Amino acid sequence: MGKGRLEAFSDGVMAVIITIMVLELHAPHSPDLAALAEEAPPFLAYVLSFIYVAIYWNNHHHMFQLVKRIDGSILWANNFLLFALSLVPFTTDWLGENHGASVPVALYGLSLLLPALAYYLLQSRIIHQQGPHSELAEAIGGDWKGKLSPVLYIAGIGSAFMLAWVSEALYAIVAIIWLIPDRRIENRLRGRAATEDE
Amino acid sequence: MGKGRLEAFSDGVMAVIITIMVLELHAPHSPDLAALAEEAPPFLAYVLSFIYVAIYWNNHHHMFQLVKRIDGSILWANNFLLFALSLVPFTTDWLGENHGASVPVALYGLSLLLPALAYYLLQSRIIHQQGPHSELAEAIGGDWKGKLSPVLYIAGIGSAFMLAWVSEALYAIVAIIWLIPDRRIENRLRGRAATEDE
Amino acid sequence: MGKGRLEAFSDGVMAVIITIMVLELHAPHSPDLAALAEEAPPFLAYVLSFIYVAIYWNNHHHMFQLVKRIDGSILWANNFLLFALSLVPFTTDWLGENHGASVPVALYGLSLLLPALAYYLLQSRIIHQQGPHSELAEAIGGDWKGKLSPVLYIAGIGSAFMLAWVSEALYAIVAIIWLIPDRRIENRLRGRAATEDE
Amino acid sequence: MGKGRLEAFSDGVMAVIITIMVLELHAPHSPDLAALAEEAPPFLAYVLSFIYVAIYWNNHHHMFQLVKRIDGSILWANNFLLFALSLVPFTTDWLGENHGASVPVALYGLSLLLPALAYYLLQSRIIHQQGPHSELAEAIGGDWKGKLSPVLYIAGIGSAFMLAWVSEALYAIVAIIWLIPDRRIENRLRGRAATEDE
Repeated sequence: MGKGRLEAFSDGVMAVIITIMVLELHAPHSPDLAALAEEAPPFLAYVLSFIYVAIYWNNHHHMFQLVKRIDGSILWANNFLLFALSLVPFTTDWLGENHGASVPVALYGLSLLLPALAYYLLQSRIIHQQGPHSELAEAIGGDWKGKLSPVLYIAGIGSAFMLAWVSEALYAIVAIIWLIPDRRIENRLRGRAATEDE
Repeated sequence: MGKGRLEAFSDGVMAVIITIMVLELHAPHSPDLAALAEEAPPFLAYVLSFIYVAIYWNNHHHMFQLVKRIDGSILWANNFLLFALSLVPFTTDWLGENHGASVPVALYGLSLLLPALAYYLLQSRIIHQQGPHSELAEAIGGDWKGKLSPVLYIAGIGSAFMLAWVSEALYAIVAIIWLIPDRRIENRLRGRAATEDE
Repeated sequence: MGKGRLEAFSDGVMAVIITIMVLELHAPHSPDLAALAEEAPPFLAYVLSFIYVAIYWNNHHHMFQLVKRIDGSILWANNFLLFALSLVPFTTDWLGENHGASVPVALYGLSLLLPALAYYLLQSRIIHQQGPHSELAEAIGGDWKGKLSPVLYIAGIGSAFMLAWVSEALYAIVAIIWLIPDRRIENRLRGRAATEDE
Repeated sequence: MGKGRLEAFSDGVMAVIITIMVLELHAPHSPDLAALAEEAPPFLAYVLSFIYVAIYWNNHHHMFQLVKRIDGSILWANNFLLFALSLVPFTTDWLGENHGASVPVALYGLSLLLPALAYYLLQSRIIHQQGPHSELAEAIGGDWKGKLSPVLYIAGIGSAFMLAWVSEALYAIVAIIWLIPDRRIENRLRGRAATEDE
C-alpha cells in the first residue's frame, strides 16, 4: 500500500488544525490598544500551539521519508495521532481564555501528552513493520527528546494544581527543545544518498 | 481520466470535515472540572464521528487502490458520498447537545445511513465500470460488513424513539465492527504483487 | 510552469469552501422535529450550493486535463474563480435565513453569475494560450451550457424583485442542466487515447 | 529532502487561510440593501486580504520551482511564513469592523509586514543553500518590489495614527504593485528550457 494518500490526508488534517485555531482569536471589542491587549493570552496560547502542530508536521514529514509502505496498524496509529492533534484547538481555546487557571492548564498538558503517546505508538508500529534492521530505529537512536517530553508534560500537568506558570514554562521548554535542529533523519538520508552515489 | 485529483479533492474534503467538527467543542464557561464535565457528551459524539469519518477515509483509500480510471458516474457518486459525510458535523453537533433525545439520535443514525448508501452506490459504479472480472468485486466478496451496517443504522433510527441508548450503542458497535482489521483489499494487493513478481 | 500546484491549491480551496458551508447549518434550538424543520430552508440552500461548487470542481478538473502548462494570466484568472466561489458560503447563509426575500435571492444569483464569468475568463485565457488549434476550444465546441447559464442567472436576479420563487427555480434548473452528463472533454480524451494507440 | 510535502502542506494552509476569512462576513441582520451595505467595509477588507494571500501563494509557487531540495532552516522559515499569514484573518476581521480606526489599521499593516519579512527570510535561506551561483538570486535580481513593500507597510503603520485612509491606500497600492505581472522567474524558467533544448 502506498504512503502517498496517507501523507496527503495527514497534511490536509494538520493544515486545517493549525489554521482553524486562529478562528478562536476574536476581534477585540473596541478599536484600541487596551482591548487588543486583552487578546494577548489567547494569542500566546495560539503561538505555542502553532509551534507544536508545526513540530508534529515536521517530524511526521521526516519520519515518513524512511517509510516505504504502510499497513492497517500504521494507518490507524496515524489516525489516532491526527485525532489527538485535533483536540489541540479546543484545549488552546480554553487555556487562552483562562491563563494560569489549574484545570485548563492541566488539560492543555494532557492534550500535548496524548499526541506524544500517539506519535510514539506510530513510530513503534513503523519500526515493528520494518523489522530488525529498521532504518527508522537506527535513525532515531536513543530518542532522548521523545522520552523526555512526556515526562515534562506529566510534570506540567501535576504542577498545574500548584504553580500553573511552571506548567506553562515547561510546555514552552519542550517546544524549544524540539525547535533546536535535530539532524538524525537528515543525516541518515544524506548517508543513504552518499552510499548510493558511491 | 486519472484518479489523482478525485483522490486529492476527496482527501481535502474529508480532512476538513473531520477537523471542523472540533469547532463545535466549545471552551467550558468556567475554568473548572464541573464545567469541563458538561462537555463530555459533545466530546463523545465527536469521538464517534471522528472514527466514522476516519473509517470512510480508510475504506475510500483502499477501494481506490483497485480503481484505474474514473468516469462521470463514479465522479458524481463520489461527490454524493462527500455530501453525505459533510452532514455529519451538523448531526454530531445536535446529538452532542442533546444526548439521549429521540430526534437528534435518529437524525444522527440517518446521517450514518446516508454515507453508507452513497458508499455502496460508489462501489457499485466502480464494479460496473470494471466489468465482469472486476478486481474490486472479487476483493470485497460477500461484503457482510457493508450489508449489516445499514440494517443496524435503521434499527438504531427506529429504537431512537423508544430506547435512545440502544441506538447510541448500535452506532458504536458498527464503528467497532469496521475498526476490526479487514484484509480483503490488502490481501488482493499482496496477491497481485506476488503474481507480478513471478 | 507545471499545473500540479495550481490544481492542488484549487482543490484545497474548493474543498474548504464546499465544507465550511455546513458550519452555517446550526444545531436546532430544541431537540424536536419542529425545531429541525426550521433548518429546512438553510439546508436546501446548502444542498444547492454544494451541487454548484461540485459542478465547478468537476468542470475545472475536466478542463485542466487539456491544459499542459500555465502562465501568469491563467494563474490569476484561476485565483479570480476561487475568489468568486469563496463568496458562495456568505450568500448561501443569507439566502438560507431569508428564503424568498428579494435582496438575498438576487445576491445569491449574483454570486452564481460571478464564478460563471470567472470560469469563462479562465477558459478563454487557456484557449488563447493554446493558440489556433486549441484542443480545449475544439472540445467545448458551441458551449451552449456556458452561454445559457449567465442568461438564466441574470433572469433570476431580475425576477427576484418580482417573483423570488421563479429565481430560485431558475438557479436549480441551471444546476440540473450541468448535472446532465456532458461528454465533450471525456470524448476528446478518449479520441486522443485512441489516436495514440493507432 | 524532497520539496513535495512542504509544497502540499503550504498549499493546504494557504487554502484554509484564504477561505476561512469568508466566515467573518456575517449574513446581514435584515434582508435588505441597507443591511447589506453595512457589510461593505468587511467585504473590502476581505477582498484586499484575499489578494494578498493569493499573491503570497503565487510567489511561493514561483519561488519553489527554482528550489531543488530543502533543509531544516528552509522548513522553519516556511513555517514562520505560514504562521505570519495565519494572522491575516484575525487582523482582517478587526479592520473590517473598524474601518478607518487607527489601531486596527496599524495592526493590519503589521500583519502585512510580518509575512513580508518571513518571505524575505525564506528567500534568503534558499539563496544561502543554493550557494554562490544561486539560480533564485539571479532570477530575483534587484528585487525592488520586495524592498519597497516593507517601506510602504511601515509608512502605512505610521500614518494610521494620523490619516488612516492614507494607510489603507498604501496597503492597496502594494497589492497592485504585486499584481502587475513580474516575469523574472518565468523568464528564467523559459531561459533554462531554451538552454536544455539547444
